[in-house]
Amino acid sequence: MKKAVVLLSGGLDSAVTAFLARKDIGKRGGLYALTLDYGQVHSRELSSAERIAKVLEVEEFREEYLTIPCESALTSSVHGTVRVSGVELGIPETWVPQRNSVFLALAFAYAEGVGADWVYIGVNSIDYSGYPDCRSEFVAAMNKALNLASKRYVETGRGIGIVTPLMHKRKSEIVELGVKLGVPFELTTSCYFGGERACGVCDACRIRLEAFRKVGIGDPIPYKE
Amino acid sequence: MKKAVVLLSGGLDSAVTAFLARKDIGKRGGLYALTLDYGQVHSRELSSAERIAKVLEVEEFREEYLTIPCESALTSSVHGTVRVSGVELGIPETWVPQRNSVFLALAFAYAEGVGADWVYIGVNSIDYSGYPDCRSEFVAAMNKALNLASKRYVETGRGIGIVTPLMHKRKSEIVELGVKLGVPFELTTSCYFGGERACGVCDACRIRLEAFRKVGIGDPIPYKE
Repeated sequence: MKKAVVLLSGGLDSAVTAFLARKDIGKRGGLYALTLDYGQVHSRELSSAERIAKVLEVEEFREEYLTIPCESALTSSVHGTVRVSGVELGIPETWVPQRNSVFLALAFAYAEGVGADWVYIGVNSIDYSGYPDCRSEFVAAMNKALNLASKRYVETGRGIGIVTPLMHKRKSEIVELGVKLGVPFELTTSCYFGGERACGVCDACRIRLEAFRKVGIGDPIPYKE
Repeated sequence: MKKAVVLLSGGLDSAVTAFLARKDIGKRGGLYALTLDYGQVHSRELSSAERIAKVLEVEEFREEYLTIPCESALTSSVHGTVRVSGVELGIPETWVPQRNSVFLALAFAYAEGVGADWVYIGVNSIDYSGYPDCRSEFVAAMNKALNLASKRYVETGRGIGIVTPLMHKRKSEIVELGVKLGVPFELTTSCYFGGERACGVCDACRIRLEAFRKVGIGDPIPYKE
């Protein structure tokens, strides 16, 4: 049985990634969803992740908790620090240092335990080009390091592979792919503020709305007027 | 001001490492201690770490929390699974997958925030040769990956270095070093069972006792009769 772990945040990208993982390993494959609560302001993502996992009929939905020793606009209760206009150049203040490093390490621990050969993560180097841990170069280096730390790799020579199917796609291409795969976009959450209705003005909302507009379909999640 | 982050577990190795870090950066250097509670059975380590940090007059003692998606004898409440005789060959069952990967990633996040140039970790490839994430090869690969994920490295080209002063030392050499540095061994905890008195029979206790015997000094912590 093919097995894969997918890092599922409840956002649009990770949902599309999870549906791709399901397609890759087949209906009978074992899909394991890992969601990480790191104190993000938009904790609404967590319940989204669980609902998406249910639709995917995962083998297990696992939510783990961690605190990251840093200050970031994403984990801060001061919502005012999240930008609401213009897409920032460089590294945004919503950047959480080493978040993907920690996430990938935890996903590898999980994969090793359940015997999965692949870890899927929805990182993307295009729209959020400011995040250093969303680049191929980082993912390749981390993949190597995590295998070197792995009992399975050391004992058997068989490593675990990180799969980043969205790495070089534009947001609109990700939406198109999601349409093809039947991703329930209405269950996904992108807004940094995490309210009942998306704000429509933060970076995440604006990039998402722009992508749906380009594809020419409506975004099914509710927005504030 | 020289600054360093040290991963402080409350164990003997990390205490010696922290004292070495203090020596390296000097009395006026900024030392930041990071202790991680990952649900370890021996949570006694956490209060040990705090007391050691106090002796070291750290700039900040930070304890973070995380859950690792795996089953290990170290995070299990079933104490019986911790070996109490013979030093295991291969990878022990107290192995927590990717623990050092996660720890190093979190330490890098912390170091980046406080502007530290170094992350000290007391890994050792001799006595616990079964742990793949205690080897130089792993540490070097992880150091590279974490810098590639780092905002600071990407923006300035200045990376953070992982320092592993105990990598190739035998336990007895570590004890000798600790004696020279004035490490308060009485504050350190090694026993996997984490009781008020060390068990004296688990792998960690036996390796520790053997080291003190070789050095020819008494271990100041209390043991069960």
